[in-house]
Amino acid sequence: MVNLHSMPDLQKEMKRVKSAVDQLILTKLLPESSPIREVDLLYKMMRDYPSRPAKGMRPFLCVTACRAAGGEEGMALLTAACIELFQHWILIHDDIEDGSELRRGKPALHRVYTEALALNAGDALHARMWGALLTNRTSLGADRTLRVMKEFSRMVNATTEGQHMELGWVQGKRWDLGESDYYEMCTRKTSWYTVAGPCRLGAIVAGGDKRTLEGLRGFGLKLGVAFQIQDDALNLVGDSRKFGKAKSDDIFEGKRTLILLHMLEEASPDERRRAVSIMSKERSKKTKEDVSFVLELIQKYDAVGYARRRAAEMMKEAIGTLRGLNWKGDRTAAALLEAFARFAVEREW
Amino acid sequence: MVNLHSMPDLQKEMKRVKSAVDQLILTKLLPESSPIREVDLLYKMMRDYPSRPAKGMRPFLCVTACRAAGGEEGMALLTAACIELFQHWILIHDDIEDGSELRRGKPALHRVYTEALALNAGDALHARMWGALLTNRTSLGADRTLRVMKEFSRMVNATTEGQHMELGWVQGKRWDLGESDYYEMCTRKTSWYTVAGPCRLGAIVAGGDKRTLEGLRGFGLKLGVAFQIQDDALNLVGDSRKFGKAKSDDIFEGKRTLILLHMLEEASPDERRRAVSIMSKERSKKTKEDVSFVLELIQKYDAVGYARRRAAEMMKEAIGTLRGLNWKGDRTAAALLEAFARFAVEREW
Repeated sequence: MVNLHSMPDLQKEMKRVKSAVDQLILTKLLPESSPIREVDLLYKMMRDYPSRPAKGMRPFLCVTACRAAGGEEGMALLTAACIELFQHWILIHDDIEDGSELRRGKPALHRVYTEALALNAGDALHARMWGALLTNRTSLGADRTLRVMKEFSRMVNATTEGQHMELGWVQGKRWDLGESDYYEMCTRKTSWYTVAGPCRLGAIVAGGDKRTLEGLRGFGLKLGVAFQIQDDALNLVGDSRKFGKAKSDDIFEGKRTLILLHMLEEASPDERRRAVSIMSKERSKKTKEDVSFVLELIQKYDAVGYARRRAAEMMKEAIGTLRGLNWKGDRTAAALLEAFARFAVEREW
Repeated sequence: MVNLHSMPDLQKEMKRVKSAVDQLILTKLLPESSPIREVDLLYKMMRDYPSRPAKGMRPFLCVTACRAAGGEEGMALLTAACIELFQHWILIHDDIEDGSELRRGKPALHRVYTEALALNAGDALHARMWGALLTNRTSLGADRTLRVMKEFSRMVNATTEGQHMELGWVQGKRWDLGESDYYEMCTRKTSWYTVAGPCRLGAIVAGGDKRTLEGLRGFGLKLGVAFQIQDDALNLVGDSRKFGKAKSDDIFEGKRTLILLHMLEEASPDERRRAVSIMSKERSKKTKEDVSFVLELIQKYDAVGYARRRAAEMMKEAIGTLRGLNWKGDRTAAALLEAFARFAVEREW
């Protein structure tokens, strides 16, 4: 049994790991400056998102799963930093694809520097991520380095597929979607790179066995969906200063969230027709009244409540899977993973 | 001495290697289909550029350098295919960044499917490239696989820096540029991924020594610039059906080519002022008369002739470096590399 009184505070742990990882990124993994003016600006752009505040959940999961699986924290820091680099480049590209205005409380990179330069800076960060992963060789050896990279490859493949599904639904004006479509999309778009990938990468670094990796896959895929549902809920009802994105951005972007799909299922044919017609408009053509109408229907049918209940169920299933694992390492770390699972659906930011 | 009569025809060799590499890409490295409609479309988009005709110079260089350095062609095919994948994803992104309309004689990917989906498909291909490189392990072993990936990392880093330089000049309306700026940009943007990277990767696969790699770096960096100059020239004076891009696209895009920089240096202050003001206009605001004016100045000062003479000099220096190398493998392959160097600046497509 873990003594809960001696367990470090989850958010402090996340902050501690995040700070170690950020230092690695900004002092070792990314170039600082160049005598060529344009190249110098590229480096500055690459260092922009890594310098903005963020929760650091993914590196925390990687490092903590490594410890739970019997490894040392130091073994996993580089891999955890590469997970953050992944998050940085994919957010730069997502923000362009979604036409987002804000990221982490400041204008998105393409709003500061043009889409063309931001797109290329995302590619540059993407390549640096793989370059940094290669340097795992010194501490993990060639074989384990390649295993880590294989997991990265799986994680990025899933994420681009999920991203395409979501964008494709918006562009194809598809509304013939049910809950299972949302789960398919969300498992790919969010679960792999937010929970399953980071946890499994930590376990791989520690030399975890196949059963542990399988378990972390199950844990991560379920918890990732629960995490995304809470993200969707916060986008509608959260404090945008804490959340770092514009309020109700998902409605402006036409995102198919579980909340929205549930509301559409419950709504009357007339309500549904009007809501679909609003959601299908281009971002710039949606009025405040349009968005209010959709928000009121969401409230009328308690769609946020419904989605949060589903998220809570998935979180419990995920914790069940986690408890079935036979950890070889630090039991406190395993308890922290469970604390994170609760945080993922209870957080307000 | 190589018997030139028994040397295979360069273009036939390029075609043969290209065809082997394309088959590998389309049957083994890229997924074919998915039961999920949107994911299936993503796969179709990923297979689009790889299905369009192209010269296949880069895989040819990789395979041929491998043979010259003492390796077997089969050892290098996977790496050569990954070089093609690199070319595919970076072209998708470049076409978005430059606002290009045509690629290889057909509409650019983002013109067919929207910028958002094309951007994401480029990311998906980028990740598949690294995933495919990992599978070198089976034939090359873990250590050599990591060395290949390290060279890839260097190659992609240089390319994104060169791309940023070129975009940054256009966006910053910079015209205070000389020949040496062009070479700096071009070495990064073109030389690494077109010549230096492919040749060195072939040699690394074959287990080539440090001296060979250094020599191929020198050969590749010079020849790459010469290749780009010829590309710039063909963009102005070439047959756009053969070349696969819209005629004078570089002038519409405001590219700083050696041809243009030389013309500006030779032009009278009035000519220069008008040319710069035209070149600085946005693509859509340039008239046919604008472009004709710039083309006439280029002709008046024989700027294409000047640039081609510079390209020919660099090609000769590159061949000098190549001849100084002590090849351990197939001498015919080494002769083919030299034949390629001439082709790079003499080609009409």
